[in-house]
Amino acid sequence: MDMQTSLLDRLFDAGLLIDTGVDGLYGRSSAFEDVIQRFEGLISAFGSSSPSEVIRFPPGMNRSHFEGSGYMKSFPQLAGTVHSFCGCELDHVNLLQCMAEGNDWTKDQKATDIVLTPAACYPLYPTIAKRGPLPAGGGLFDLQSYCFRHEPSKDPARMQLFRMREYVRMGTPEEVMAFRQQWMERGQELIAAVQLPVEIDVANDPFFGRAGKMLANNQRDQALKFELLIPVTSTAKKTACLSFNYHQDHFGKTWGLTTSDGAVAHTACVGFGLERIALALFAHHGLDTADWPAPVRKALWG
Amino acid sequence: MDMQTSLLDRLFDAGLLIDTGVDGLYGRSSAFEDVIQRFEGLISAFGSSSPSEVIRFPPGMNRSHFEGSGYMKSFPQLAGTVHSFCGCELDHVNLLQCMAEGNDWTKDQKATDIVLTPAACYPLYPTIAKRGPLPAGGGLFDLQSYCFRHEPSKDPARMQLFRMREYVRMGTPEEVMAFRQQWMERGQELIAAVQLPVEIDVANDPFFGRAGKMLANNQRDQALKFELLIPVTSTAKKTACLSFNYHQDHFGKTWGLTTSDGAVAHTACVGFGLERIALALFAHHGLDTADWPAPVRKALWG
Repeated sequence: MDMQTSLLDRLFDAGLLIDTGVDGLYGRSSAFEDVIQRFEGLISAFGSSSPSEVIRFPPGMNRSHFEGSGYMKSFPQLAGTVHSFCGCELDHVNLLQCMAEGNDWTKDQKATDIVLTPAACYPLYPTIAKRGPLPAGGGLFDLQSYCFRHEPSKDPARMQLFRMREYVRMGTPEEVMAFRQQWMERGQELIAAVQLPVEIDVANDPFFGRAGKMLANNQRDQALKFELLIPVTSTAKKTACLSFNYHQDHFGKTWGLTTSDGAVAHTACVGFGLERIALALFAHHGLDTADWPAPVRKALWG
Repeated sequence: MDMQTSLLDRLFDAGLLIDTGVDGLYGRSSAFEDVIQRFEGLISAFGSSSPSEVIRFPPGMNRSHFEGSGYMKSFPQLAGTVHSFCGCELDHVNLLQCMAEGNDWTKDQKATDIVLTPAACYPLYPTIAKRGPLPAGGGLFDLQSYCFRHEPSKDPARMQLFRMREYVRMGTPEEVMAFRQQWMERGQELIAAVQLPVEIDVANDPFFGRAGKMLANNQRDQALKFELLIPVTSTAKKTACLSFNYHQDHFGKTWGLTTSDGAVAHTACVGFGLERIALALFAHHGLDTADWPAPVRKALWG
């Protein structure tokens, strides 16, 4: 915990992150944003050999798509639903009275049709399924959005609102497995290009509750998830900065997504935790990007 | 309504916007994003003669700051609070049962400490106030974030999640009025540079309810808000694409923000509705950016 608080305080002091009074919710300086933007450029360069469709969704998604995804089965504690005031003028008077008295005014807010995006790829699957069967050779998509996870923490590498860049592959099991293998190699080259220490390991998602333990074990046993780990706030407990996920036919079945010959499509994604990677760069190379090693500067700024 | 639906359908058909099944919530293509990015570059070029501090907040803000801002007094119907599941394993079982039965599972979600950002500058005022008095000459800030407003609509120029770029000036009344005047001129030059028809008018915010009518009238009478209007989906009802707002000492008083000599700071902002400007460009110059007039292409792509 000490190293986490210490890095966070150093980032606040340097003005790279800006305290908002809520753990895991920070403003970013232009220097911080520049690192994110440059690293995204590097991702694009590594990804450019395979043509992809670029889509940028806003940070919220259709609630009915979210409900259909099964996210609330696995990670109910992390999701964020968006609620609004839907009352009349009298309700508004009561609301203001409630706020003035310091009472809980949020209990009468009603859920809207929007849920915060939990991972950049969640809005994609129903969108692509609606187009009909995938073309021969499947599909490859390039996504990025702010994502929300309700896990307040003093660990700067565990933000509540953070950006995730993703490539998503849809197609036959062979196509998506080849994609994942390719990105597991590319991801390590990419991180080596910015001189960060890295190791790759099989992983599991933070499924909720005791029943979730079984899901996690199953995910590990089948090696469905790998993570690229970089020490950020601790050398003992490294931070997952990239993840490589094979969903098998989960999203294909859920959304009726099929390959060109009518089989249920398989999907896989590689996700980059952009803030985590920026934090790793600042933690390893120093808080002033002008002092970063020349090869790292060259990789990012060219 | 016909022209609105027709533009939206044309944007969907061209793949520039992507339907998510919720009115006002759309995916963006790479061509759409490129226009936004290039237009932001043009804003930066116009703004670069006055040095500003760049801050990028995520699309959510501290709920206590939001509560303190008075937003729920004026626009309760537009705000979006973020809620999460905070229950135990038994609650989770009940939640899943409720979802499986197609009942309203959202009523037990609890408000988190985060509210969606209603305008890019809302998180700024308490952040700057915490630093102490402004330096001599005041402050100038450059912001951009996704903002949320709960107003589902088929008008593509009225999205629920959209990006706002802002410059915010804090200082003496003279300093902030000079800033607003400067941007009212710059804004018109900027829009002229991309060959869009434009007019400027005094305006008011959509204050809630009958009591809000008085606030709106007061705002107009005092000429606190101007808007730069461009026809997008209708020539009769033009769309506000830039707004110029003088807050007087509202945020200064609210957050204890003071000038270097201890007076309550005044504030003003210029806000660019980035999606609205992109829509205006597509509506006027056509859906293929390659066909846009050469001077417009030069202004945006250099």
